[in-house]
Amino acid sequence: MNARMAAFRERLGGFAFGGDYNPEQWDPAVWKEDVELMRRAGVNLVTVGVFAWASLEPSPGEFTFGWLDDVLDLLHAAGISVDLATPTTAPPVWLSHGHPDVLPVMEDGETFGFGNRLHFDPTSPRYRSHAVRIADRLASRYSQHPALAMWHISNEYGPTSYGPHAAAAFRVWLRRRYADLDALNDAWYTRFWGQRYTDWEQVAPPEVPRSWSNPARRLDFKRFISDALLECFIAERDAVRRYRDDIPILTNFMRFYRHADYWRWAPHEDAAALDIYPDPGRPGSHVSAALNFDLMRSLRGEPWVLMEQAASAVSQWKVNNVKRPGRMRLGSYQAIAHGADSVLFFQWRAGRGGHERFHSAMLPHSGPAARTFLEVAALGNELPLIAAVAGAPSSADVAVLFDWDAWWGLEVTHGLPRNDFDYTAIVESAYRPLFEAHYAVDLVSFGSDLSRYRILVVPNAYLVDDGFVAAVEEFAAAGGTVVVSFFSGVVDVNNQVRQPAYPGAFRRLIGAYIDEYWPAREGETFEVEFADGTTAIADWWQESLHPETATVLGTYTTGDLAGRPALIRNDHGSGCVVYIGTRLEPAALRDTLLSAVRAAGAAPVVEGAPPYVEAARRDRYLFLLNHSDARAATVTVPGPGRDLLTGAAVTDAVDLPPLGVAVVELS
Amino acid sequence: MNARMAAFRERLGGFAFGGDYNPEQWDPAVWKEDVELMRRAGVNLVTVGVFAWASLEPSPGEFTFGWLDDVLDLLHAAGISVDLATPTTAPPVWLSHGHPDVLPVMEDGETFGFGNRLHFDPTSPRYRSHAVRIADRLASRYSQHPALAMWHISNEYGPTSYGPHAAAAFRVWLRRRYADLDALNDAWYTRFWGQRYTDWEQVAPPEVPRSWSNPARRLDFKRFISDALLECFIAERDAVRRYRDDIPILTNFMRFYRHADYWRWAPHEDAAALDIYPDPGRPGSHVSAALNFDLMRSLRGEPWVLMEQAASAVSQWKVNNVKRPGRMRLGSYQAIAHGADSVLFFQWRAGRGGHERFHSAMLPHSGPAARTFLEVAALGNELPLIAAVAGAPSSADVAVLFDWDAWWGLEVTHGLPRNDFDYTAIVESAYRPLFEAHYAVDLVSFGSDLSRYRILVVPNAYLVDDGFVAAVEEFAAAGGTVVVSFFSGVVDVNNQVRQPAYPGAFRRLIGAYIDEYWPAREGETFEVEFADGTTAIADWWQESLHPETATVLGTYTTGDLAGRPALIRNDHGSGCVVYIGTRLEPAALRDTLLSAVRAAGAAPVVEGAPPYVEAARRDRYLFLLNHSDARAATVTVPGPGRDLLTGAAVTDAVDLPPLGVAVVELS
Amino acid sequence: MNARMAAFRERLGGFAFGGDYNPEQWDPAVWKEDVELMRRAGVNLVTVGVFAWASLEPSPGEFTFGWLDDVLDLLHAAGISVDLATPTTAPPVWLSHGHPDVLPVMEDGETFGFGNRLHFDPTSPRYRSHAVRIADRLASRYSQHPALAMWHISNEYGPTSYGPHAAAAFRVWLRRRYADLDALNDAWYTRFWGQRYTDWEQVAPPEVPRSWSNPARRLDFKRFISDALLECFIAERDAVRRYRDDIPILTNFMRFYRHADYWRWAPHEDAAALDIYPDPGRPGSHVSAALNFDLMRSLRGEPWVLMEQAASAVSQWKVNNVKRPGRMRLGSYQAIAHGADSVLFFQWRAGRGGHERFHSAMLPHSGPAARTFLEVAALGNELPLIAAVAGAPSSADVAVLFDWDAWWGLEVTHGLPRNDFDYTAIVESAYRPLFEAHYAVDLVSFGSDLSRYRILVVPNAYLVDDGFVAAVEEFAAAGGTVVVSFFSGVVDVNNQVRQPAYPGAFRRLIGAYIDEYWPAREGETFEVEFADGTTAIADWWQESLHPETATVLGTYTTGDLAGRPALIRNDHGSGCVVYIGTRLEPAALRDTLLSAVRAAGAAPVVEGAPPYVEAARRDRYLFLLNHSDARAATVTVPGPGRDLLTGAAVTDAVDLPPLGVAVVELS
Repeated sequence: MNARMAAFRERLGGFAFGGDYNPEQWDPAVWKEDVELMRRAGVNLVTVGVFAWASLEPSPGEFTFGWLDDVLDLLHAAGISVDLATPTTAPPVWLSHGHPDVLPVMEDGETFGFGNRLHFDPTSPRYRSHAVRIADRLASRYSQHPALAMWHISNEYGPTSYGPHAAAAFRVWLRRRYADLDALNDAWYTRFWGQRYTDWEQVAPPEVPRSWSNPARRLDFKRFISDALLECFIAERDAVRRYRDDIPILTNFMRFYRHADYWRWAPHEDAAALDIYPDPGRPGSHVSAALNFDLMRSLRGEPWVLMEQAASAVSQWKVNNVKRPGRMRLGSYQAIAHGADSVLFFQWRAGRGGHERFHSAMLPHSGPAARTFLEVAALGNELPLIAAVAGAPSSADVAVLFDWDAWWGLEVTHGLPRNDFDYTAIVESAYRPLFEAHYAVDLVSFGSDLSRYRILVVPNAYLVDDGFVAAVEEFAAAGGTVVVSFFSGVVDVNNQVRQPAYPGAFRRLIGAYIDEYWPAREGETFEVEFADGTTAIADWWQESLHPETATVLGTYTTGDLAGRPALIRNDHGSGCVVYIGTRLEPAALRDTLLSAVRAAGAAPVVEGAPPYVEAARRDRYLFLLNHSDARAATVTVPGPGRDLLTGAAVTDAVDLPPLGVAVVELS
Repeated sequence: MNARMAAFRERLGGFAFGGDYNPEQWDPAVWKEDVELMRRAGVNLVTVGVFAWASLEPSPGEFTFGWLDDVLDLLHAAGISVDLATPTTAPPVWLSHGHPDVLPVMEDGETFGFGNRLHFDPTSPRYRSHAVRIADRLASRYSQHPALAMWHISNEYGPTSYGPHAAAAFRVWLRRRYADLDALNDAWYTRFWGQRYTDWEQVAPPEVPRSWSNPARRLDFKRFISDALLECFIAERDAVRRYRDDIPILTNFMRFYRHADYWRWAPHEDAAALDIYPDPGRPGSHVSAALNFDLMRSLRGEPWVLMEQAASAVSQWKVNNVKRPGRMRLGSYQAIAHGADSVLFFQWRAGRGGHERFHSAMLPHSGPAARTFLEVAALGNELPLIAAVAGAPSSADVAVLFDWDAWWGLEVTHGLPRNDFDYTAIVESAYRPLFEAHYAVDLVSFGSDLSRYRILVVPNAYLVDDGFVAAVEEFAAAGGTVVVSFFSGVVDVNNQVRQPAYPGAFRRLIGAYIDEYWPAREGETFEVEFADGTTAIADWWQESLHPETATVLGTYTTGDLAGRPALIRNDHGSGCVVYIGTRLEPAALRDTLLSAVRAAGAAPVVEGAPPYVEAARRDRYLFLLNHSDARAATVTVPGPGRDLLTGAAVTDAVDLPPLGVAVVELS
Repeated sequence: MNARMAAFRERLGGFAFGGDYNPEQWDPAVWKEDVELMRRAGVNLVTVGVFAWASLEPSPGEFTFGWLDDVLDLLHAAGISVDLATPTTAPPVWLSHGHPDVLPVMEDGETFGFGNRLHFDPTSPRYRSHAVRIADRLASRYSQHPALAMWHISNEYGPTSYGPHAAAAFRVWLRRRYADLDALNDAWYTRFWGQRYTDWEQVAPPEVPRSWSNPARRLDFKRFISDALLECFIAERDAVRRYRDDIPILTNFMRFYRHADYWRWAPHEDAAALDIYPDPGRPGSHVSAALNFDLMRSLRGEPWVLMEQAASAVSQWKVNNVKRPGRMRLGSYQAIAHGADSVLFFQWRAGRGGHERFHSAMLPHSGPAARTFLEVAALGNELPLIAAVAGAPSSADVAVLFDWDAWWGLEVTHGLPRNDFDYTAIVESAYRPLFEAHYAVDLVSFGSDLSRYRILVVPNAYLVDDGFVAAVEEFAAAGGTVVVSFFSGVVDVNNQVRQPAYPGAFRRLIGAYIDEYWPAREGETFEVEFADGTTAIADWWQESLHPETATVLGTYTTGDLAGRPALIRNDHGSGCVVYIGTRLEPAALRDTLLSAVRAAGAAPVVEGAPPYVEAARRDRYLFLLNHSDARAATVTVPGPGRDLLTGAAVTDAVDLPPLGVAVVELS
């Protein structure tokens, strides 16, 4: 476990509770009330300075740190620690006005102007040097401030640029990856459509996609941008670390963020940190949240930081629903159950203006009498009851592949047999039955160590790298169970079809080859009959599967492929592989997955609980969360213990009211 | 009443009848036939020259006024007056080809090129000087022409530009508004997201909206563009007026036009003038037309000019339906009923080419035997029967707020609790029940004098200025009734949330505060129970209302806010306020509004008529209009009189066939 | 018949069978396997070099013809002929990188960059000179190669450019068309909206359409681009022909391609050639295919070349369905039935990378055991059975107008009474009943000789030229039957309404005029009653028809025009004209058309066959094609003969299984 994070946890005496604090919005008179109300709410950590560059350096080289000195002193005096941000997500207007080349150039060639946020080109040398400069100045001034507990580098790294800086940096990145142009030409398959490059200078970022473009070029550009953003982070991190080495440094990740490969980022962070805003108006958004939480924990195999969530509504969608009473508390415990060691919000006090004026805050426009503040303060004062949980580890028998290369392969390129794949929805559809059956799940990437798991689920991994193919074969050979769903293993890392037959990467593993992919016609469904005579409906996709060593688990009884296998099973070494060649209706997918999970010997966290009750463990702490607004539940638990929230002894079951939470320390 | 308009009316001996006449499309031989047919159709006014710049000045400084001389002489000889247009809506190609900087730059940064209309940047100094120059030349030549009865400045002012001229002019406008940069920074809340400006040169028009932008900046840019267009009008008006002061000068407004604040424009015009093209294919478009007519009358509290309508179909929509027989006549009388002193069309003779070749004309492609011409001529020959009505004033007990700042606040900015507000639809939904119950309605803006009304309706006025807040309080205190609907009074003119609690502006007025806004979930509905035990369905929006001095009129019986108030009533001085915190189903909104209207002592124009019959009064003239295609109606009228169209005596009721019209002069 | 094509056919001994071969994708080791498998599949022609520019000229002036020498020698040795392509559809990156002015500028002003295909501006002088240069080099090297059987100039000519080269070339084209600017001003009706040009330099390509634009300018720009692309073809053709005159030279057309007027192109080709990719997921796509096939045959009145089709799925749509077993064979025979003398595919071997990696190939990723290869090889080995059919001519009694000017008039311009016309769908809706009733159909353009037909169908020809009007009148006068559907004959070639009344061009022909066009309201339908008392439903469109010499065939019984004629019939000389003034339901349209066809004395290919069976003749060869997946059919044939595919004698009927094909040589 990361030592800096351990020290941080110790400093806070358990969980971090608080949020983004942007005092530059308010007169100093308000700051006093803020601190008073923070104390009332149990706040012990605030993130300061995320958008403060213009307030700290109003003109080039003119610094106005005084107000920040005062804020940090005031917070420190109140016993509140500070997560100090480098403000590089929002460069001041004097930078972009004087030097428009720091602004990102969008895919359509237009410059993204000042007046929003994230108005920087991550590949601009000028931006980078200014970012490092302001980070250095902040670190030089505040590294030894007693309030300082953590560094927050920039914010929600994101912008892509397609401009001249990006073109130059992309070429540098490509030269590093391919060394010579022939290798690039091979990787990008430029031998076709006459796309062969003869000079590095000819290579440029991809244009606006018009459905006809080189899929390998698009893929590499995604990888490049993720790396370019990461370089920005590392440069600031190193600037800050120079002044002090014992404080965690991290940046905040986002929910299912398509533009940065967090597996590559995580080793450079002291902890994974997540900003998450599940839509309160969408039923089932807690499953997607759980999946993201598990991803954060899996990135480093450690507890992580819930860096931002909303106290109630957000301001980013067409309709921004509020969180009903109890939902914010439930979601906060859910994050902890999945490994978070903090509950932090954006932001402390609702702003009066700007785009986010209606984004809910811990302290709403309607003040400390407001429902939201009361719920926030209640939670802040309740969390110390479970302080012992902070830092506790988690473990899982089940692994699900979630890899950015697999994602990009499926969604960034065109020309697939069908082009409406939604990778995160696909992963979630495999994750949901495991979640509802109360199995602990880790997410893994191509490079992950699989040996700790009993079963690996590989949803629609169209693109896989050779290392992963070998690792999966080894995992199965050693007795692991693998479930692979359709259109997996098709191409290599360059988006080139693996030969000589589909699915090139997994043919041996699944013991079958596929002649053709048969995406379903509009509205078409198929019946699949299983060995036991039961049937299920499938749709969306078929494959003409030809078993070689595999046995048939399910067969189409209708449609163009009637009589052909829909699901097969193959023994591989001591393990076995189930391959699902179509999109099964949810109940059938659930049964197929759970039967494989059980056969693999994986154990659920609890047995027999209803699907709307979530169960998760951190070490000896069992979290039970009732996501139903209406239904109570009684959950049988594995042994006696004590509910830390109520102090009540637990013998063998826990009663949960609607939206109820229990944190049982098992004996 | 405007003296120039009075003289104009006198000159025409009642109503103006005619339309746009573009003789430059035709050989002079056709002009003679035109004039002959105009006389047959009762035409007494035509608008000439709207698009004639290229015909009048084919190359810079080379003028070819001869043809226009001939046209004006010909018209004058036929007794037809002329509304002479400055042709500045369509600059000649030599201007934009030689000086592309006169072309507008669109929001996406592209230049709007020659080949359409409205291809001018209203902030271009070069465009402005050329526009004034051609206006001056026209005025110098034709001011004393005996045919001249009115000046028509440019046409449907509209284009927005985001280019360098606009940027410079925006800064000038902002300096005038804010004087110093600190004030702008405060107004725009740039303290957040690091948007603080330190030099005026850094301030620019907003970029393409990507949902994350400064809402105050967007709002000010809307105000600025409206003012910039108005400056164009004023400059031409002044150039023309220099030559002659007794002729009305105006420009034509458009239906629900979002980009120009007509309340600010109207004082600079001699009359409001409207171009309106209700979609004949949309049932109920006559209600929207009535609302626009009332807006035109309210802008100056005077009769106005119906400057353009279609004789039948237009050419601007995907499907352009014709007006069924009788519909054009009915719509023309409807405009008059709401205060129009003219019936004018675009255009006289259907063009053979160009984009508008299928826009119906008074004289269609199929010639004077065509249905449309016959209906036009019948109307032109019927109008003199009601000549006495011209100039007659109107009055109303009921005022409805319709303010561009309120509109822009709700629609131009993002990040609201929900972002699908449709301001004009909202206003129309409050207007429709008043219209169908035969109440006369004035529209008012923030700055209007409210003292003449008994009741004021404020639909969803998210943004209100302080003056309006004070005026409404005074109005209520003095005994007025106010009906306010949800999400009103939230922000100030800078789009900043009024503190310390919602609805900041109206908390005292409505006697309650709101903890949180609760936009409805997709498909969610709520039951509201009223004091008398009746119930209604509501949807789309809720608020957690906390009455302070108010009493409850209706309570939610279902949903998240079951048991909380949905509608409240508060006494304020001698008056009272009804606040509607949700979107009621139409019948319930109608009952709530009408009950408040009746309680306020407002009187309808007629009693007991069906909702498809419209009733409106101008002084002692009562207009009855049957909008049903199928149903006849008998309408009880307030006292005896005479139907000016038939000459028949009216005792106490009038029979209207489908699409029938009566104009009763009450004794 | 074209002598070069006759020689080509003789060389191949019947039909050409093969496809695009892109060996530059593969190591030479693969080439050997390719040739071996080609022979197995019966391939006798491959198209080589379409995308090979970068492989042939890797840097300016450095040629690497060696590999192509080898490929051609290898193919020749195997007895496979070559259709050698000039590779100008995909210029190498060194050309566009060094000279970005060869790239097309899109309608929105952005440059279409390298990385796709068709990245050339057809109006760029630099592009043109490079294209001719490489064509010349290829011809100089390979003209005498024994494998060479045909030249394939570029590929699917298509790109439009709006940049400076296009502007300059457009002006040249316009000067050629109009000679002086006054004529252009008249043609474009610039007299309105002040659009008059006073200098050629002011004229530019149209901007992005924003619904308000000059319809004549847009129309001329379409014509210009088609001509500009054709100039590219002609320049390369002439460069190649210089070296050898006896080889056919052509380029490949596309299905319903909107941007090139193939009637103008066809005389410059040695044969029409078609690339067609009917969507296997869309029922009825074989009718659309038949129509395109007939268009290809009609363009030159000769057999044509099926240049590209897919062996199974394509990769261009959102969902790319496979061709079910038997469908590829059926579609191939369908092309032959309609006059194709070849069955060629894109491409031979499925590529591993690039955008089209999942476009099906003759030899799929899964190799020669794959279903698709087996079907391809079976067809290739079956085709020699019908070798005698190659070159056989077709004839038809029925002509249907399909003209690009008519198409552009209806779709390129805005402001019509309704703006959702879909020209190709309209033509297809008239073609389908003829197809299903087994009539042979030719397509004709404005300039076609009509004298060989008995009946002419003119679907929605909004724009017609004067020559066609005269030709149709002459055709009818001489005894021909004409069926014209609504909104035809309205404007001239400049998109100007023909005066004095609708339908200007056809008023005399149809014996009626139209007062107004009445597009239907949303969802509106009308009942039409025919003379015999039967009724039908119509929708979408009405016209207020006023018969002058015509008699009424059908009358509206409901709707705004109840009592007015919906269909009329007019005698014209010895012929007669049926005019359909509304959109009839399909069965009524079918009955109207077939009754006219029968009355005109046209004879079907077969009698009494079900509509899912297609029948077509080439000389004495009768093709019967069963498009049903499920139903068999027995088809009565006109006399005895022999089924060339089975060798079986045919007396008076043929039995077709589902998807079955018979090719009967009639005695």
